[in-house]
Amino acid sequence: MGLAQARALGTESRHEILRVAEKIFARKGYSGASTREIAETAGVTKGLLFYHFQTKERLYLTVIDNMVRKLRALATPPAGEDIDWMGHVRRVIDGWTDFLMEHRDFQKLISRELMDEGKFHKKIIDEYLKPVYEIGTSFVREGIKAGVFRPVDPGTVVQMVISTNAMYFISLPLHRSILGEDPIGPEVLARRKEALWANFSRILQKD
Amino acid sequence: MGLAQARALGTESRHEILRVAEKIFARKGYSGASTREIAETAGVTKGLLFYHFQTKERLYLTVIDNMVRKLRALATPPAGEDIDWMGHVRRVIDGWTDFLMEHRDFQKLISRELMDEGKFHKKIIDEYLKPVYEIGTSFVREGIKAGVFRPVDPGTVVQMVISTNAMYFISLPLHRSILGEDPIGPEVLARRKEALWANFSRILQKD
Repeated sequence: MGLAQARALGTESRHEILRVAEKIFARKGYSGASTREIAETAGVTKGLLFYHFQTKERLYLTVIDNMVRKLRALATPPAGEDIDWMGHVRRVIDGWTDFLMEHRDFQKLISRELMDEGKFHKKIIDEYLKPVYEIGTSFVREGIKAGVFRPVDPGTVVQMVISTNAMYFISLPLHRSILGEDPIGPEVLARRKEALWANFSRILQKD
Repeated sequence: MGLAQARALGTESRHEILRVAEKIFARKGYSGASTREIAETAGVTKGLLFYHFQTKERLYLTVIDNMVRKLRALATPPAGEDIDWMGHVRRVIDGWTDFLMEHRDFQKLISRELMDEGKFHKKIIDEYLKPVYEIGTSFVREGIKAGVFRPVDPGTVVQMVISTNAMYFISLPLHRSILGEDPIGPEVLARRKEALWANFSRILQKD
């Protein structure tokens, strides 16, 4: 095996371990999940898992870090003078739905950590979640200053945006029963994005 | 001991068992919680616990039933011709916050059941949660028909009202960190109620 091929295989196994770890940690919590199960499900040896991530703790935090990195990118408004304020709101609403579709277990993992006040909840709050909230609230605050948004309470609006989707995605069996159809079917999600957008633009948009 | 006194003690012990069971089930989930621990914490014998509730399952469902009964009452609009539509929305927003303050573990218990798709999640969805949602959506639908509310998507608005508070109360350590003050302090909650009211009345109220 050449070096390039070995590197490619290494990246692939690392990616697969992360993918599997995300699911298993979300289902069982940090202490309930075992690295043996993660390695077996990912089809790698425990040796390779520890080669990539050293400790279970490191693997867990890498899983969260990876996802929150995407959320930070999503929340960050484009740089520049002429900000399309409402356009960014729309991108965040749509992108947050898309993110949760792709990482259906993210919110379970985070909710468990917050509900149980688990081993890492302080770190997760301070290093991961709080910064994302702050990007959101300062964007709304700036939009109010710029005279584009109404004088809303920034924290409450951001919490509404985040919570509405977060709760929807950890309660899918409930919404399947209420809607009488697949709550994550493409048409249902498209209608949902429109409805959320209508409501949040109503909250933010000046008359 | 006279009969009246024995009855009073019976009601009191029943109430105390329910109060303790609500906390312990929320913290540990149905299977993690033990009736021994619940009885001990409530200061009663296991015999008395089973005298009141027969089975662990019955105790668990009584805990949930008790709380959802209050939510159903809260969601139900007053009868009569001249409905104060916006007044009812305000009462629901404020009352949902007050309910979660009083039953801080309710949402954890429900969220665990939904996330784990636990033994009772179908029953809880169909008999408890779905009816509360339906009271809410039909109220919004009627309000649109009556020409009082804007043509919003009823389901999405109801889900926003429920989720925003639900997520806030299962994430208190996060909001403590973001706000830099007690997220359930009386002034913080009063400001929060005002902000939620401003946002939801904006969504619903016709110009």
